[in-house]
Amino acid sequence: MTENRRIVLAERPEGGIDARTFRSETQTLPSLADGELLVKTLCLSIDPTIRGWIARDTYLPAVKIGEVVRSGGLGEVVESKNPGFKPGDRVFGLLGWQEYSVHGAKSGLSSVPPGVPVTDALGVLGATGITAYFGLLDVGKPQAGETVVVSGAAGATGSVAGQIAKLKGCRVIGIAGRPEKCRWITEELGFDAAIDYKNESVGKRIFETCPKGVDVFFDNVGGPILDSVLANLALRARVVLCGAISQYNQLEEAYGPKNYINLIGRRARMEGFIVLDYRERYLEAIMQLAGWVAEGKIKHKVMVLEGLERAPEALQRLFTGDHDGKLLVQLA
Amino acid sequence: MTENRRIVLAERPEGGIDARTFRSETQTLPSLADGELLVKTLCLSIDPTIRGWIARDTYLPAVKIGEVVRSGGLGEVVESKNPGFKPGDRVFGLLGWQEYSVHGAKSGLSSVPPGVPVTDALGVLGATGITAYFGLLDVGKPQAGETVVVSGAAGATGSVAGQIAKLKGCRVIGIAGRPEKCRWITEELGFDAAIDYKNESVGKRIFETCPKGVDVFFDNVGGPILDSVLANLALRARVVLCGAISQYNQLEEAYGPKNYINLIGRRARMEGFIVLDYRERYLEAIMQLAGWVAEGKIKHKVMVLEGLERAPEALQRLFTGDHDGKLLVQLA
Repeated sequence: MTENRRIVLAERPEGGIDARTFRSETQTLPSLADGELLVKTLCLSIDPTIRGWIARDTYLPAVKIGEVVRSGGLGEVVESKNPGFKPGDRVFGLLGWQEYSVHGAKSGLSSVPPGVPVTDALGVLGATGITAYFGLLDVGKPQAGETVVVSGAAGATGSVAGQIAKLKGCRVIGIAGRPEKCRWITEELGFDAAIDYKNESVGKRIFETCPKGVDVFFDNVGGPILDSVLANLALRARVVLCGAISQYNQLEEAYGPKNYINLIGRRARMEGFIVLDYRERYLEAIMQLAGWVAEGKIKHKVMVLEGLERAPEALQRLFTGDHDGKLLVQLA
Repeated sequence: MTENRRIVLAERPEGGIDARTFRSETQTLPSLADGELLVKTLCLSIDPTIRGWIARDTYLPAVKIGEVVRSGGLGEVVESKNPGFKPGDRVFGLLGWQEYSVHGAKSGLSSVPPGVPVTDALGVLGATGITAYFGLLDVGKPQAGETVVVSGAAGATGSVAGQIAKLKGCRVIGIAGRPEKCRWITEELGFDAAIDYKNESVGKRIFETCPKGVDVFFDNVGGPILDSVLANLALRARVVLCGAISQYNQLEEAYGPKNYINLIGRRARMEGFIVLDYRERYLEAIMQLAGWVAEGKIKHKVMVLEGLERAPEALQRLFTGDHDGKLLVQLA
């Protein structure tokens, strides 16, 4: 009998998440049935998409009221009645905001190769880096010499997407909030220019920094920033919709990009994607990313908060920008 | 010496076009230089894109103040110092709102095959039909069994796009204003359903008529209609941006589609195109469309206004919907 502390959805947020959104509780887990395994959570990945999951049906069904908050995480198998897993195995999957999780035969869990640090497995070599990889290369299809703009450029996904674009020979401009983030992406990551959306006019700076127009926009943010970039598209530009974090807290009053009309004259496209669709090609991305990380060609930052109870705070920080790089919650 | 009556741009419209937008004038044309030809306008094609050309630089430079209004048209060569053309040839191209036009060696004029009626050459077998053909098939890529929605469905381009989708085995829903237009597209053109946006809730009716979601949206309209369709996309939907006639008169206060965020979860794309890019493949479209028209598989309506001076009124009618099918202005 295992006691499991977990954080469940207490009520659906209207606007931002707050103290009423989540609730902690403890449950007693039943013993395992045949085919099941018990995983102890080591670390949780805090991603903007969680905000969507607790609000409504998206590409996955909405988390129900009273259900554990869905979340990617990395854990260790502590008991197994499943021949595919044995105690001590490190696994990655949708563990949820909880200390333990029980998974059935079709667990959707993947093994984490030994030697990969936990933070990398959840970040640059996890869904975050893989999202950047396929979103940029498969949807954005940047060519050497093209101009690539990334929003949320100091974030976990955006910083990797921008570095991959540099490795592919593109000019890369990052949009981030605050001077220290802008310095990081230009001085440490090698972006060609940065736009501080909290202190500069994005529209004006996009025209200044992209005199030939924007060939690929990797957008994590949406809202007026998306609109500013749509105003300066190059012919046949590709706008990769990775996310829209500026809009997740205000879907009723969401900001629609008026300049979408430029997609016509520019013969451009705006396209969404979900990393889960690339499941069968994850290995390709991981191998390539691991190589670049090992060679020092992709740098990344991780911010770790300690303790399950800090998961809601971590999620909140994604929306205030009060974090650096990949946000993780480590369990005791 | 030829006297040429023409309509020029008097001032750029703010909001809708009105009596101040255009001005008539008469000029005397100089004699032809080597390589030039003189074309007498027979008929002008009145298209929404003219509204863009007189407002700002788009995929073509803006018409300047005092310049003749740019417009597709069909004419007859009356004099030629160009070995490629001889008097009596019927030609199609950017003739402008005027009785005569002089074209140089690189005229961009195409010959109209004998036997093709003037109205077809400017409509279903002209830029209008070709736009529907490539926009739907090349950008939208509909598959048999898919659900295709067309806005401006009783218009010149939309009505052809919808009929092509039917010929490709799709379920087709048209959005049009007024019951008689809705009847025409369902009873005469074979659309599976029609939505009267002036008398029905488009959002509600899209959910009712497209229970599996919309696979292809061929959009001529933009604005809230686009938003309603974005709310009910099928997985991997394609939104073909052909035009946005609801927005051309209000670009400052344009309506941005908030539901663009659904493109992410639906892994969908929204893409613009310009028919000029298909110039080298026009013949393919014309041959195919001519066959369908001859077999009675594509029907079309034409509305002809008589006299050059009615061109501004014709353009206005595109925006009020006070027309039926392809709008042409015939010169005396």
